[in-house]
Amino acid sequence: MKAKVHVTLKNGVLDPQGKAVEHALGTLGFAGVGEVRIGKYIELELNDDAEKSKENIENMCKKLLANTVIENFDVEIVE
Amino acid sequence: MKAKVHVTLKNGVLDPQGKAVEHALGTLGFAGVGEVRIGKYIELELNDDAEKSKENIENMCKKLLANTVIENFDVEIVE
Repeated sequence: MKAKVHVTLKNGVLDPQGKAVEHALGTLGFAGVGEVRIGKYIELELNDDAEKSKENIENMCKKLLANTVIENFDVEIVE
Repeated sequence: MKAKVHVTLKNGVLDPQGKAVEHALGTLGFAGVGEVRIGKYIELELNDDAEKSKENIENMCKKLLANTVIENFDVEIVE
């Protein structure tokens, strides 16, 4: 079983990496690109002895994968 | 309009960041977590004067957002 986790910066939190990409895309000639926000995408493989609930994955996010002060996370369980 | 881009390491490419997370989750007491792979998740806001085709976004990926030697990318256009 697999879990997909998206970790994104909360609205209002400055994203310097995104700003840099935004600027670079303009420089490369891609017109009309507005705000760019960059987050993390994490794929977790879960073995048979893992607790496979969404709550368990959300705990992983709270404890390690995301900084909940400035980041949101979104958990999706797939086969 | 918005585009969502996932940039992930190709299979077989070593992911030290993922390995570190895998190890850390084990240390924190989360059992049964197998392979962890970490990629990037990019949200692009496209203004009215942007070329809104998937091809255009894929060109951005090839030119800037992804290193196609070691990374795959996946583009999704949303409203």
